[in-house]
Amino acid sequence: MSQTQPIPFGIMLHGAGGHMNSWKHPSGPADASVNLDFYIDTARKAEAAGIRFAFVADGLYINEKSIPHFLNRFEPLTILSALATATRKIGLAGTVSTSYSDPFTVARQFASLDLISGGRAGWNVVTTPLEGSAKNYSRPHPEHALRYEIADEYLQVTQGLWDSWDDDALLRNRDSGQFFDPAKLHALNHKGRFFQVAGPLNISRSPQGQPVIFQAGSSDAGIGLAGKYADAVFTHSPSLDDTRQFLRQVKTSAVAHGRSGDDVKIFPGINPVVAATREEAEAKYQRIRDLLTIDEALAYLGRFFDHHDFSQYDLDAPFPELGEVGRNSFRSTTDRIKADAKARGLTLRQVALEAATPRDQFVGSGEEVADEIIRWIDAGAADGFILGFAVSAEGLDDFIQHVIPVLEARGRYQRELPGHTLRDHLGLPRKQSRYAAAPASQEQVA
Amino acid sequence: MSQTQPIPFGIMLHGAGGHMNSWKHPSGPADASVNLDFYIDTARKAEAAGIRFAFVADGLYINEKSIPHFLNRFEPLTILSALATATRKIGLAGTVSTSYSDPFTVARQFASLDLISGGRAGWNVVTTPLEGSAKNYSRPHPEHALRYEIADEYLQVTQGLWDSWDDDALLRNRDSGQFFDPAKLHALNHKGRFFQVAGPLNISRSPQGQPVIFQAGSSDAGIGLAGKYADAVFTHSPSLDDTRQFLRQVKTSAVAHGRSGDDVKIFPGINPVVAATREEAEAKYQRIRDLLTIDEALAYLGRFFDHHDFSQYDLDAPFPELGEVGRNSFRSTTDRIKADAKARGLTLRQVALEAATPRDQFVGSGEEVADEIIRWIDAGAADGFILGFAVSAEGLDDFIQHVIPVLEARGRYQRELPGHTLRDHLGLPRKQSRYAAAPASQEQVA
Repeated sequence: MSQTQPIPFGIMLHGAGGHMNSWKHPSGPADASVNLDFYIDTARKAEAAGIRFAFVADGLYINEKSIPHFLNRFEPLTILSALATATRKIGLAGTVSTSYSDPFTVARQFASLDLISGGRAGWNVVTTPLEGSAKNYSRPHPEHALRYEIADEYLQVTQGLWDSWDDDALLRNRDSGQFFDPAKLHALNHKGRFFQVAGPLNISRSPQGQPVIFQAGSSDAGIGLAGKYADAVFTHSPSLDDTRQFLRQVKTSAVAHGRSGDDVKIFPGINPVVAATREEAEAKYQRIRDLLTIDEALAYLGRFFDHHDFSQYDLDAPFPELGEVGRNSFRSTTDRIKADAKARGLTLRQVALEAATPRDQFVGSGEEVADEIIRWIDAGAADGFILGFAVSAEGLDDFIQHVIPVLEARGRYQRELPGHTLRDHLGLPRKQSRYAAAPASQEQVA
Repeated sequence: MSQTQPIPFGIMLHGAGGHMNSWKHPSGPADASVNLDFYIDTARKAEAAGIRFAFVADGLYINEKSIPHFLNRFEPLTILSALATATRKIGLAGTVSTSYSDPFTVARQFASLDLISGGRAGWNVVTTPLEGSAKNYSRPHPEHALRYEIADEYLQVTQGLWDSWDDDALLRNRDSGQFFDPAKLHALNHKGRFFQVAGPLNISRSPQGQPVIFQAGSSDAGIGLAGKYADAVFTHSPSLDDTRQFLRQVKTSAVAHGRSGDDVKIFPGINPVVAATREEAEAKYQRIRDLLTIDEALAYLGRFFDHHDFSQYDLDAPFPELGEVGRNSFRSTTDRIKADAKARGLTLRQVALEAATPRDQFVGSGEEVADEIIRWIDAGAADGFILGFAVSAEGLDDFIQHVIPVLEARGRYQRELPGHTLRDHLGLPRKQSRYAAAPASQEQVA
């Protein structure tokens, strides 16, 4: 992405916020995760501010130790569809797992959302790291490598289904009586290791061709999948250097799969806490951290480590050696936590509090946070950002009030959303059908 | 239902209409089946007229001989969710198959729709009669009896999951820090023949307790399932007597399952063609029938008979003997067609044209159709009706203009929807949780 392009942002819609006790924060409703008005208000406010897409994460089982308001929340496809008619331009992306769903159904539901929203749908492809999901789905949990093999074939199927109807297949000619041109309707006839799907899909392509593919895994297998299929990647942001290295890995992977590095946009998730001054921002951060007890923080940390019981350790001793614990579940997150604890010599208490109240480089005054955002972009560490506010209501208001005007003043932000589709908002071309003639630009080259 | 209660109606949202060439009719857009504005306009118009719910049917594969605009249509859960934010009070029901989905996902999606809509969700449980679906789902098509065994267990699971959270489980107490009461969150721990689902569901109960269960199969197995689980049944309406007999079978089945006959409401699907006079209504019917050729009608008929090739027969000879053809697919429909052809001595041409342009007792002037509706209700053949207009746009307008005022004048219609939830609209009490204390009325009896 050219450094002079406006910087694109997405926003996590995760109820009260990413902090486990954000529901206690007075700036929003305590029932935010199932409060339709709150979702609509947040999406509209973000849209009016020029934020390019809303992003709904997901989970497939209840773990009583996890973030309480995530135990009770809207399902992504239904809430995104509801938001489609309550908003006009903002992109609508959500998580669905390839390990616990059927590609024909998921292809249909995202295609339907894409038509309903006028081309604003995005699917965050996850393989589901948590074994607890299996207990709700009558099947064993596939291990890490197998999940990615399933996901790869799953994406072949869904993208194939999305090309079932050529853009001009539907004639609807009332005079001739021809509704569609059968030559422009394509069966998939996929016969693979995991899936046998004949097709065609019973819904047509949208204004953006196909829904946008987000991908969020950052293991080697995740990077491979992203390079092959993803239009955008939602990643962690441990540091500018780490994120830049990750960005390069994904873009290299895309090139290895015959694509351009520009075909896949990297969106680190950041957790801004912003105010008029750094001191006020620190005070806001402290108020968020004060929403929880150390016991709650330990339980939250345990979620990433297969519900490991951290209460057995000395809180103020160095973070314990965990060996293989956490190697199958959230592996990239747990590896990062372990490495970070060792590198910085953190105690268990410090690791737990940080994990439960994420703090990154984006805490500070509006000027400071805008500078840091620009620094990441100009350093080639990101193509844009996903805003994962610890407290949704206050976080978004502060970002709009303190950061966006600074970015605007520096010529790095555009409030008017470009175009109408999510691909437009991400700087991606419309997705061509695999059955379409080569585009003119390629023909001219030949 | 008391005969003096207002008569409740639902409306099929099926794009341009139930007639295979309804997309050619000038009263609506040719792309109605994927036209969001048309869906919203229709739902709002129905809501304003006091129609109590919208109903979205479904199919899981493309059959090129089927109704053309059904090959390319919105997926039910996404379009219903989109309508939830575009309407205020109308119920929102849709079809999802128990043969090709996961109960945890479907329970979540309907629960989410139910919360999003403020308690207006209904699920039409089907077992999917068409074998073509299997080719899109990487699995063999279960035969008829097995499909109903799966559906039975599937409903146990979904209804169990819907009771995961007691109504008062969510405390969200910002002072005590308690988000929910763990004693009021229930795991299901279902271990059955087809499904193993631990639960709990990660979304809470809605204002109506649980989504409404519709059921639409009319075989013996379908009646059994309806009697056990259904709140409402969508059925055919071959004649008043047949429908009354069916109603009694379902209500008897409900009683056999320890429920009251009043717990399950019977909604025959009817296809009104109405105008100011009978002559004008006949002319309207003829214009609809003229939208198709005999070849198109034969192909449509074939869909119900496993795509049997009817072009091999003499069009004007008696309807052919088909033996076992059509015995596994749409069995109740094909049995009815065969019996009707024999009883009335119809030719193949007549059967095909009737099948493709359904005609029932509800063609006539507004007075005549209103009288027929009241006659069915008063005879105990129906608790209400689902309006499946052959041509959606014209059909709804005519029904509102010509029938509703007559029903109103006779004291049999109420434009103001009663209450807020779909259960309110259907005259059904809020669904109690299985974990709730026995209701007061039962305690008084003991």
